[in-house]
Amino acid sequence: MNDVVSALREVLPPEALFTDAEALRRYSHDDAEWAAFGEPAAVVLAGSVDDVVAAVRVAARLGVPVVPRGAGSGLSGGANATAGCIVLSLERMTAILEVNADERYAVVEAGVINDDLRQHVAGHGLWYPPDPASMSISTIGGNVATNAGGLCCVKYGVTRDYVLGLTVVLADGSVAKLGRTTAKGVTGYDLTALMVGSEGTLSIVVDVTVKLRPLGGREERAIIGYFPSLTDAGRAVAAVSAAGIVPSALELIDRMCLHTVAEWQGWTLPEQADVLLLAAVDEVGAAGEELAGRIAGLFADAGGTGVERATDPDDVARLFLARRLAYPSLERLGPVLTEDVCVPRSAVPEMLARIERIAAEADVVIANIAHAGDGNLHPLIIAPEGDAAAKDRAEAAFTRIVDACRELGGTVTGEHGVGLLKLPGAAAELSPTVLRMHRAVKDALDPHGILNPGKAFPATVPATESATEPATAER
Amino acid sequence: MNDVVSALREVLPPEALFTDAEALRRYSHDDAEWAAFGEPAAVVLAGSVDDVVAAVRVAARLGVPVVPRGAGSGLSGGANATAGCIVLSLERMTAILEVNADERYAVVEAGVINDDLRQHVAGHGLWYPPDPASMSISTIGGNVATNAGGLCCVKYGVTRDYVLGLTVVLADGSVAKLGRTTAKGVTGYDLTALMVGSEGTLSIVVDVTVKLRPLGGREERAIIGYFPSLTDAGRAVAAVSAAGIVPSALELIDRMCLHTVAEWQGWTLPEQADVLLLAAVDEVGAAGEELAGRIAGLFADAGGTGVERATDPDDVARLFLARRLAYPSLERLGPVLTEDVCVPRSAVPEMLARIERIAAEADVVIANIAHAGDGNLHPLIIAPEGDAAAKDRAEAAFTRIVDACRELGGTVTGEHGVGLLKLPGAAAELSPTVLRMHRAVKDALDPHGILNPGKAFPATVPATESATEPATAER
Repeated sequence: MNDVVSALREVLPPEALFTDAEALRRYSHDDAEWAAFGEPAAVVLAGSVDDVVAAVRVAARLGVPVVPRGAGSGLSGGANATAGCIVLSLERMTAILEVNADERYAVVEAGVINDDLRQHVAGHGLWYPPDPASMSISTIGGNVATNAGGLCCVKYGVTRDYVLGLTVVLADGSVAKLGRTTAKGVTGYDLTALMVGSEGTLSIVVDVTVKLRPLGGREERAIIGYFPSLTDAGRAVAAVSAAGIVPSALELIDRMCLHTVAEWQGWTLPEQADVLLLAAVDEVGAAGEELAGRIAGLFADAGGTGVERATDPDDVARLFLARRLAYPSLERLGPVLTEDVCVPRSAVPEMLARIERIAAEADVVIANIAHAGDGNLHPLIIAPEGDAAAKDRAEAAFTRIVDACRELGGTVTGEHGVGLLKLPGAAAELSPTVLRMHRAVKDALDPHGILNPGKAFPATVPATESATEPATAER
Repeated sequence: MNDVVSALREVLPPEALFTDAEALRRYSHDDAEWAAFGEPAAVVLAGSVDDVVAAVRVAARLGVPVVPRGAGSGLSGGANATAGCIVLSLERMTAILEVNADERYAVVEAGVINDDLRQHVAGHGLWYPPDPASMSISTIGGNVATNAGGLCCVKYGVTRDYVLGLTVVLADGSVAKLGRTTAKGVTGYDLTALMVGSEGTLSIVVDVTVKLRPLGGREERAIIGYFPSLTDAGRAVAAVSAAGIVPSALELIDRMCLHTVAEWQGWTLPEQADVLLLAAVDEVGAAGEELAGRIAGLFADAGGTGVERATDPDDVARLFLARRLAYPSLERLGPVLTEDVCVPRSAVPEMLARIERIAAEADVVIANIAHAGDGNLHPLIIAPEGDAAAKDRAEAAFTRIVDACRELGGTVTGEHGVGLLKLPGAAAELSPTVLRMHRAVKDALDPHGILNPGKAFPATVPATESATEPATAER
């Protein structure tokens, strides 16, 4: 028997340790199609902080990598196993440890599903805003590891904006409580923020103190419109922004995506329905009505047709149905490689036009959903199962999309994380000096490199720049 | 001539270097009364990034500490000089490098005054929310270094929430661009957030990319009420929170502070006016009216008298006048040692009661202003000029307030930073493991310890915990 397995067996309860072929296979990768992965030596389903500590200490002692994981719903390969590693799943740590309605925070274990947290705190009159599309399956720990976004972050911010504190297990197995529960606080470095989005490479998050908002005081109104071209839709998005309106969602669905949904559902679309924009506002009463009316007007002015508004929750859900069906309708066509790039808001139409060209040139099908209000695009690249040549073309398109996003002043990942798939993009985006800072921080907190090695930032760091190099070269 | 001075003279333009006694004295400390300071070897008033790089390279070569500084308006001693150091002021770097109205961000040099940024972007229809009380004198670089808060952060967040990116000079003189200009982005570690609040101990901020909001879409309404006791005022604050209302300001002024202002201004206060609460909401139209009305009702229900509301900007300013005059009115009584602690919102009345007892027992005058909606208190400790015994008593009271805040589950600094004054408090608040993390990060990014050494976190770190110690000891 493997050294790692026998060492883990000594320190973990039997129900926490899995080494059968099915478990090793199932826990070898997340939801990123085509990211590389290896077979782990063991899978630990931690039931407590003590289990996490025990597993990390074994890993530290034997120099074996630990790959932490929540639901495995990541889309960048951040939770993919390396050969011989310990996959450490937090999915069984699902306790909601505290809800404090007066101070508006909750403390939850890392394995709590985003939706479960949302529903639980709603019972206390509170709201946890971050709403990644995966919210019914993804864990808070995973959301923290990737700094997950969502639809409402255009108005309410991303996961990072709701993390007050963390309990983490460090690379030597020690446990640290970071952050605070008070509304404000600046004691020491913001190590909490450093951990958010670090993809388990600096520590393993075991519980999270999340900031909550009052549940009430909002009334959702939806506004949709179909546009004859990307340019027209882009003009509508720009007009909403220029009017100083901050919607609670502003989503775009392109022609390929829209027509796939419509065909599947048997919908008849308005003529010249090339792009669908879906907006929401959540101000109450007359203020909400007025904003919704202004957005509807701006949509119409920009050439929108079939402009509709809804206030009744069922009607709002109906108007947003195309957004909810986008991903499943595309998955019916074949495996979907989900891109995630973020460009300046005003560059969304140009970016979508470039993606259209890249799809044509690479001969692949690419459909787009986008958080248009944030400039965050999710090109969905589809390649038929078992077609190796199509897969190669899809991967080439993926790379070209990342390059195009950089050319337009964008960033290579808006909300899914670097994982493995965006390592080349991150190497292009981050300067040698910034990469050296990453390496220095990583080495400081994980000197033996056992925490999810090879993820989150490119490992190869250029040699130290000479001190005689122009100091302002990066500016 | 001193080695440092001659080395600086070689690389800096003459107008950037000051070594006269008056400059050395003037730049030897910030606005923290009684924090220790020494005489610097030289003062550099950088006019460009090149000047900063040149000064840091000299410091690195000679192993001399660099103490960066903005306006010197800090209240924790974070910019206090150590003997023989280089004080590096960014106050002359005041260029607004870019305002992008479409993407709602601005790039400004570190020396730009908060108010100047605010006014400049208002001309583009944009708003920079963070509003520390020092905003007419403090710089954005200093705001970033301390993660400054303010009045409106109860609704709109603190400086950290508005920093998208930074250009920083590292300890070896290299220049790094951190962060992004897009609305979202998760490429690599959040080194931007790590720098915010790090008080110049990890890098020197030379420019800041700030996120902006639309200027319009808000209408300020003020609501005030006088309360016969801290308990009653605390009940009013709790009632506003329990009603799910998020005001755009919620300030408290205690009896000592209120009566000092009233005496100075010749105001007649309502009977039993022990505590003044000042609230603001900024929702537009009927929604704002309704919220203001509800807050006024909750104030009255909790025993508030003299409850007033205002919508006209001049009237709003009049209602908030006591808040604006609080600090200057107290300074007329003697040097003010400004405390800054943050407790759970619901513990504000208890904390104020303890402060009252501490003041009585220590025989010092303490007046309180508090961001009640955040639980962030600023006890203002006054000791007559030249009275050494009174100063000792004031310092003892300062320490006891920090201890009391910790006992109530608070944090030792809400928005002013650790600097020097809160080092003992930070040592009590941060666990040995967390302190070791600080030391590791500091050593990774500033291996020779030249950047503002001795600030932001306690330098003494306990020996490594044994691996056999209970792993969950900190939980």
